[in-house]
Order: sequence, then C-alpha cells, then structure tokens
Amino acid sequence: MLIPPPDIALAEAFLHRLAADTADTPGVTRDAYGQGEERAHRIAAEFAGRAGLEVSRDHAANLHMRLAGADRLLPALYTGSHLDSVAHGGNYDGAAGVAAGLAVAAGFARAQIAPPRDLVVLATRAEETVWFPVSFCGARAALGTLPTAALDARRADTGRTLAEHMISCHADPEGVRQARRSIEPSRARAFIELHIEQGPVLAGANRAIALVPAIAGGPRFRDARIIGEYAHVGSAPLASRRDAVAAFADLASQLNEYWRELDAAGRHVLATFGVVQTDRGMHAWSRVAGRLDFTLDIRGTDLDAITAMRRRLTELCDDAGTQWGVKVELGPDSGPQPGFLDAAVHARARAAASAVNVPVHVMPSGSGHDALAFHHAGIPTGFLFIRSRNGGHNPDEAMDVADLDAGCRVLAQLAMTL
Amino acid sequence: MLIPPPDIALAEAFLHRLAADTADTPGVTRDAYGQGEERAHRIAAEFAGRAGLEVSRDHAANLHMRLAGADRLLPALYTGSHLDSVAHGGNYDGAAGVAAGLAVAAGFARAQIAPPRDLVVLATRAEETVWFPVSFCGARAALGTLPTAALDARRADTGRTLAEHMISCHADPEGVRQARRSIEPSRARAFIELHIEQGPVLAGANRAIALVPAIAGGPRFRDARIIGEYAHVGSAPLASRRDAVAAFADLASQLNEYWRELDAAGRHVLATFGVVQTDRGMHAWSRVAGRLDFTLDIRGTDLDAITAMRRRLTELCDDAGTQWGVKVELGPDSGPQPGFLDAAVHARARAAASAVNVPVHVMPSGSGHDALAFHHAGIPTGFLFIRSRNGGHNPDEAMDVADLDAGCRVLAQLAMTL
Repeated sequence: MLIPPPDIALAEAFLHRLAADTADTPGVTRDAYGQGEERAHRIAAEFAGRAGLEVSRDHAANLHMRLAGADRLLPALYTGSHLDSVAHGGNYDGAAGVAAGLAVAAGFARAQIAPPRDLVVLATRAEETVWFPVSFCGARAALGTLPTAALDARRADTGRTLAEHMISCHADPEGVRQARRSIEPSRARAFIELHIEQGPVLAGANRAIALVPAIAGGPRFRDARIIGEYAHVGSAPLASRRDAVAAFADLASQLNEYWRELDAAGRHVLATFGVVQTDRGMHAWSRVAGRLDFTLDIRGTDLDAITAMRRRLTELCDDAGTQWGVKVELGPDSGPQPGFLDAAVHARARAAASAVNVPVHVMPSGSGHDALAFHHAGIPTGFLFIRSRNGGHNPDEAMDVADLDAGCRVLAQLAMTL
Repeated sequence: MLIPPPDIALAEAFLHRLAADTADTPGVTRDAYGQGEERAHRIAAEFAGRAGLEVSRDHAANLHMRLAGADRLLPALYTGSHLDSVAHGGNYDGAAGVAAGLAVAAGFARAQIAPPRDLVVLATRAEETVWFPVSFCGARAALGTLPTAALDARRADTGRTLAEHMISCHADPEGVRQARRSIEPSRARAFIELHIEQGPVLAGANRAIALVPAIAGGPRFRDARIIGEYAHVGSAPLASRRDAVAAFADLASQLNEYWRELDAAGRHVLATFGVVQTDRGMHAWSRVAGRLDFTLDIRGTDLDAITAMRRRLTELCDDAGTQWGVKVELGPDSGPQPGFLDAAVHARARAAASAVNVPVHVMPSGSGHDALAFHHAGIPTGFLFIRSRNGGHNPDEAMDVADLDAGCRVLAQLAMTL
C-alpha cells in the first residue's frame, strides 16, 4: 500500500501566511465570525484551491476542502479544526489541524493517488468561547445541532449577536434555525481532529503525538456568588461576621484538598476557580466583604470522580453557609458532558501510528474541542494531540515541523486504511 | 456640685441640619477637605457661635469652639470628633461627638455656669481614610504630628493632593510643613472623644454607653498580591499549577482558622481580607489565575495575639508559596499601633458615669479614631462609645437621643471634675 508523504512545505507556508496576515502583536487575533477569522478562511481556501481540492462554504461559513476518493459513493473521512484564535493568541491552536489536513490532502493530490474515500478538510468557525459564550458554534451549525438560541448570544467585545456576525461573514443564520446540515452523519465515515496539546504533558513525556480517547467535561459555573453582609472591620467581632471572602476561602481550600486526594489516586478531574472578585463598588480594605463573585470549572474524563467532586461541592457550600452565615449561589451549570471518543477509531489510530513508526502517548484532553460536537452527532470520532512548547492560547505557542509531520503521517495512514 | 444639663435640643437641631445640608441619597456625603465637610464645619461654627462659644479655625481648618472656664490659665479639656463621613455614609459617625461636645458646652453657657477649666469642642478634618490614605489628617495637623509627606497624598476620587484640598478650604499646608501646633499638649488636661460604636456590641449588651480603654491597631496590607502563572484550565494538571486563587484560599482559610483559636481563647484580634481580585484584564473562567490582589487588615488590642497572628501569616505565606509555586507579596504595612488609652482618665470616666447613673459597658475599639492621635501626642485621652443601631459607615446608622444624652451627662460630669 503506497501512502504519499504529506506536503509539509505547504502546511508550513500556510501557517507562515496565517501568522503574517492575522498578526496582532503580541501574537495573532482571529476573531470568531470577524475580520481575523475571515482572513484565515480566505487563506485556507486559497491554499486548498491551489492544491486541487474542491472548495465550498456552508451556511455557517465553515470551509469544506474536499479531495476526491477512489469511490465517491463511500462516506467521506473528515478531518480539520477551527481557524479562530483567542485575542493575541498563538498561531497553532486550531490552525495546526487545518494545516495537517491540507498537507495530507495535498500530498495525495501531488502524488496523484486517490484515497479509498473522499477526504474532507474542514476549517470550522467560532470554537474559542472567549468570543461567543457558546461551545463549537461552527461545528455544531454544520451538524445541525447548534441551538437556535445561540444565534442571540453576543460577542464579548462587540456586543453584536452571533446571527449579526454570521451575516457579516456571508453566512446564513436561517440555516441554523432550520437545523440545516452541511455534514450528514451517515455520509461521514469518521472525523479525526489534530490539535496542539495546549499543555506540558507531551513535552514532558518526550513524545510528538498523543492519542486522546476522551475529552473532558463536567460542571461549569460561570456566574457563582457568595452573599454575606458588609460590615466595618473594627466593629464586627468574629461571631457576627457574614464574610463572603472567608467563606470562599474555606470552600475553595477544602475543594482543592479533596481534589488533591482524587488526583493522588490517579483520578482524572480538574477544579479551577479562575475568576474571583469582591464588588468594586462596595469593597474596601476596611470592610468585611458582603459579596464575592467567582467562577468554578470542574472537568475531567473520570465520571465517578466528577460526580464525587460535585457532591463534595454541595456539602462545602452548605458548610460555608453554616459556618459564615452566607448564601452560596452557584448559578447555572453550563458545562458539557465528558466525551469518550470512538474506541474503534482510537484502535485504528494506534495501529496507524505504529505502522508509520510514530510512538504515541495516550492521554485525555482537559479542554473541549470541535471533535466533541462530531462525537455527540454520532460520527465515529478520533482526536490527536501534537506536542506544543509553551502551552496554548498565548503568543509563545510553538510547534516543531517534525511533530506536525508525525501527525500528518498518522492521518495519511488513517485516510488510506479507515 | 451643680452640673447643668446638656442642651440636647441643640445637639438634635445640629444633627438634623447636618443631615439635611449634606444629604447625598442614600445617606450623607461629607468629603474630607471638600464641599461636604466644609459645609458641616460651617454649620458647627454657626451653632457654636449662637451658643456663645469662641470659634476659631486652625491652620488645618479644624474648628475650635471654646467655652471659657473659671480659671483660664488651667490647661483646657478638649472633646469632639471629626465631621467628615464616608460617601453615602450615616449622619452620626464623627458628628455625634461634636454634637455631644456642643450640647455640654451650650448647657454650661445657658446655665451661666463655668466649668473649672476651658472646655474646647473640636471638629476635626479628614478622619475617614476612604478619602486620603492617611490616618487622622486633621487631628495630627492640629498636634503638629502629621508627616509632611501626607500633604502629597491624593484624594481617592479627585486625584488632587491633600495640600491642594487644604488650600481650597482656606487651610495652610505650610503649617503642616512647619509642624505648627494649634493644640499644645502641655495646655491640654485631657481629650475625651465620644463616637458611635459602628458595631453591634452595645445593642446586644443593652447599654447606651461603653468606656473604651484601648483602640485597636495592627498590621495592615492594602496592596498585597499573589503571583503565580496563567494556564489554560484543561491543560494544567494539578502538579503543574501555580494557581494564585488556590494559594489565596489556603492562606486565608488557615489564617482564619488560627484566628478562630485565638478568638475562642478570648484574645482581642480581628483579621479581614476585605478586597480580593483576580486581574480583570487577564482572568477567565477557563484560565488558572496567575495573579490575585488582596488586602489584609489585622487589628486588635491584644499585642501578643497580634504578634502571634503576624508570625502565623508569615508561615502561611511560605506554605502557600511552596505548595502552589507562587510568590506572596504582602507589600508595605500601613497599620497603626494599638493604643492603650489613659488609665487615670478611664477611671475618672467610670466614676463620672457612676455619678450620673449611667451603667456602662467596657470594650476595646476595633477601629482607629482621632483619639489615637491625641494619645500618641502625649495627651491623657479617654474614649466613649455611644450605642448605634445598624453599625457605622452606612446610611442606616441610627442613634437614640436618650443614648446621646447619657453620653453628654458623663461628659459634663467629666468637664466639672477632671
């Protein structure tokens, strides 16, 4: 079986051009359904066209770049990722997966070898939730699973709705209202996403690639608060205090302590209090805080550990309430469920890596990715990490070409064998 | 010994007029060396003039309202308090002490009885540190103990310096530079301050008045921070996290736990984390926080307990640093020393209360007051709390006339006997 080498030079040129054309010192800004992302999509279409792929845009302005397979009646193999970035982000988060897909498809085209089935490289839209507070906008729109209500979500910076932003990118929000599909699950053999790791594990393990059997989910509270009572510091004895900060400290410290226990036992779960704020209009060094707002994200792939942590959280909220006379309001839970990706695809990816002599690490993903949307739509889904230096979501992201090449070779093998 | 009844009607009229003329719904705003405080001082001068007191302003625009005593060569008895308030504060914090002094002096004047020595009712300036980050500006300026550097302190809202604000109130910052004194400690028999409690203790103890033997002080960190490292939540395993929020939670929770032990043992010390903030420009629910800013105020009258708490704080900062790989920077300590007021004056006040049949509570003050400045200047100083409903520093402060009257009777007795 002859598998053509991926066109890594094309991937490099594509990434280089992206970095140059979406630069926003420091780093790049490719705003979802905005100018930066739009520019990135135009660059991808240009590279795909030159490589001989069929290029089309769907109702959500996702880009479909299709290489014809030997049997065009077979369900296609989908690959790809998103092209938006956070503000002043790095060049590889999302784009690496599109670059890999382009390199593999261009490799086939250049060698004039057709894979057994169509290979579709997808560039999705609006994956980074810093823009719209909605997960996987573009991917879910393509799959007909984006809730209509998402169209009213407002972009954090512009305040304009997703629908308005879609229209400005020549997309059609009506398609979302009608649950239109540009990808029919029955016509998709599988979806394989490559993505940089965003973390230090592969660098530590000295591996270029990881196979990811599961993507973390769990409770997420983006609008939690503790309500106590303001009081003048000098005039509030301990027993009279309804101190929101003290209650938060106990709650967070004890939840983290419980996390330590789970972590020491090797359970995959993470807890993060990312935002903590006393009220700017009311707080003072000389005042017991009557209110504290916070966020809490619990995630992992160990469902039992997540459930145990959620239960412990409820207990600790009650304890803090009793101990400090405060009310802990967690607010709505906007977290996704964890996703356990397709075991058969995982096994095929492992075999593919072995066939091309790429040693792999196996690890769950702590973050959500477009792949989850494909998984939840019933498409057999696989996910691979590429090693990144300096994590993700920052201008210092870095990826070795050799690592991208390793990922591409696994993907090409899969395109031939899946 | 005939002691004339205090002119409570005058005190009531004065407080009523203050509330009306400095109203800033909700509550009152009497900004330090600003329009609100200036208006309050003019009202006090008007009431004092009408009551027959000699009225003068010193170089710091403090108001001296003097009733002639039988022997004008004896050192005078000083009483009074500040007339500024916090923004949207209550009408009694500070003003109650001036009202009491006016009522007592006016009572003597009306009855044409001279106390043995001059009675000077002081209305000081700029006691509330929400305006200028400097303690007891007016009182210390009167005593020649305000550091010159204070003149450069900027008012939190206007950004203008204390010197500029003083000039706008026709005060003379040069007097501060020359350490001029409008009160000569050797010419002051004592300073007695009456002040509302700002807390719930007297209401709980069902007492109108408390004698205050000590005013709390202790370490105060208004600009502390924890420096960790930002990371994407899903990609930062527990062991790799340098989480500023988690470190803060452990630190605060454990310091509060230590406080509980001291408190249970009856030790007078208070710990307050009033302001807690992750960085608005950098934080997100999806990010491990790389920085958290906080304030910490430790105060009390139990020097050993304060010292022990300060030592524990150092240990906990080290622990949090080790545990979470963060750096805790407490920043400058701007807290005052606790003040143990004059024992002889305290005993005389107790005798005075007993003579006029006012049962008293005895308790330390958790907050600093102008009285501390007099104490530190070497003047025998006494301090009395008047019961307040709904604490202090808020529009709902409330004081019963009967309680003010009880305080005035103790003060009148002291004016006659000290």
